[in-house]
Amino acid sequence: MEIIRNFKQLVNHLKNADTKKRMAVACPHDSHSVEAIERAMKEGIADFILFGDKDKILSFPCFADKADLKIVDIKDNDEAAAAAVKAIKDKEADILMKGSINTDNILRAILNKEHGILPKGNVLSHVTVVEIPGHDKLMFMTDVAVIPYPTLEQRVQMMKYLLATCRSFGIECPKIGLVHFTEKVNPKFQNSLDYVELKNMCEAGEFGKAIIDGPLDFRTVFDKEALDIKGIKSPIDGDGDGVMFPNIESGNICYKALTYFAKAELAGLVMGAMCPVVVASRGDSVDSKFYSIAMACLLG
Amino acid sequence: MEIIRNFKQLVNHLKNADTKKRMAVACPHDSHSVEAIERAMKEGIADFILFGDKDKILSFPCFADKADLKIVDIKDNDEAAAAAVKAIKDKEADILMKGSINTDNILRAILNKEHGILPKGNVLSHVTVVEIPGHDKLMFMTDVAVIPYPTLEQRVQMMKYLLATCRSFGIECPKIGLVHFTEKVNPKFQNSLDYVELKNMCEAGEFGKAIIDGPLDFRTVFDKEALDIKGIKSPIDGDGDGVMFPNIESGNICYKALTYFAKAELAGLVMGAMCPVVVASRGDSVDSKFYSIAMACLLG
Repeated sequence: MEIIRNFKQLVNHLKNADTKKRMAVACPHDSHSVEAIERAMKEGIADFILFGDKDKILSFPCFADKADLKIVDIKDNDEAAAAAVKAIKDKEADILMKGSINTDNILRAILNKEHGILPKGNVLSHVTVVEIPGHDKLMFMTDVAVIPYPTLEQRVQMMKYLLATCRSFGIECPKIGLVHFTEKVNPKFQNSLDYVELKNMCEAGEFGKAIIDGPLDFRTVFDKEALDIKGIKSPIDGDGDGVMFPNIESGNICYKALTYFAKAELAGLVMGAMCPVVVASRGDSVDSKFYSIAMACLLG
Repeated sequence: MEIIRNFKQLVNHLKNADTKKRMAVACPHDSHSVEAIERAMKEGIADFILFGDKDKILSFPCFADKADLKIVDIKDNDEAAAAAVKAIKDKEADILMKGSINTDNILRAILNKEHGILPKGNVLSHVTVVEIPGHDKLMFMTDVAVIPYPTLEQRVQMMKYLLATCRSFGIECPKIGLVHFTEKVNPKFQNSLDYVELKNMCEAGEFGKAIIDGPLDFRTVFDKEALDIKGIKSPIDGDGDGVMFPNIESGNICYKALTYFAKAELAGLVMGAMCPVVVASRGDSVDSKFYSIAMACLLG
């Protein structure tokens, strides 16, 4: 498989796929979600089952004339979420997406002990993919949205999700930078100690084919010149595919700085459940929601 | 005073100033520092006293032919730093700058109980100014480099330095966003509680004329559209001048993302001592070191 280097290539890849993924959407009652779904249907990259208030759903002109659209009419948002989750469990759908229901509420349905879809021992975590104008490949990030201050155990799972995502995009040996504000390992900063563990695990082969290095500062993961000026050696050599952040604040601020000031586009998913979950938030653009659907189709 | 909106305006402002500031530089033995000093001399924005190894200093061609250059010949780096600090204490210079000496070593000279220049009760903290292509004004940040996890007491001082910097650039009523990964105040996140205190203090007039709001996500401080989409009201209204970060990781990663991927230029200073201190690091460009000198001249 050729490496997917931008979102256009991602969409083309999905259009040429033999089978289409089936998405279960909870509460597609907001125009942003609906526009993204409409676009995904037009591009023919996914089939949809919509769980929610049928009247609200059909009030969107793009849905009104679709006779073959699968709608499961449920007025209550939480019940709609539970039904969408059940569709995943019953293998009637491959991917879960939230519409205008709160993220907390859909997560509750996913985490439900009896009816949920979180395999035992798994942790839910967010993986983000960013396309930055002028940068010649996509950037993969964890975790900008779900786990505030990961433990080492959580970081191990987060790393697995991140690497799985990179590999789905065709990157055989992902290069991941463990980001900190300095290169120094210091017991005062638990993440810098955890980074050493992750590096050692990678060298012991526990993550498969991958290069993991850190602590590194964000820039030296991607900028060979900055690496050289600092006089640092890294097996990533300024050619990073992705990053693990120290904490949720740094991840969140980084992607927001990139989307606003570097005009980056992004896609994101919650991983760890039986299927990828699209949880794009109100603040995300229609493009971003569409790319998140596409990302989910690739991984689902 | 007109607001200084970019570094070019900053340099022009200094060129038109009646008096030049005097900078004491410890160990200007590296080409990056020397190039920045050379440029500051050419532009005529500052006078210099160089503390360090005279042979090393004069080995740079740009210094070799300067008969009127003030050099204090001290071979030992730490002694040179101490002498530069003494020059500040004795009011022979207005600004301190480090060359190729480690930041820790110059800080030690500043913090020295007997001979140092830290007023009692003050805290040292870093203020960064960023010029981002396409953004119509400068962005002011604290703290991307010195205090890892500020206490409320430290945040109060950091806010004062940040506001003083904004005001030196001609912003009468600075608008500062207290950045978090969400708008929600949550006792799990101490910074979000501290933010409420800072807001209250601002409303009580303790910071002078200023607008301080948060927790806000980074983007909504600068992007009115993102603010509106989220349905949030903020007195900053997407027109922020500056930000306070939750922690050093998020600040450091943010400015590195902006400099590399949004082609931003930056200047930075350590504040809190008797004078501004230029501590630009190896990784910073000559431009960045020069703009840091200029920023110090404005504040010194």
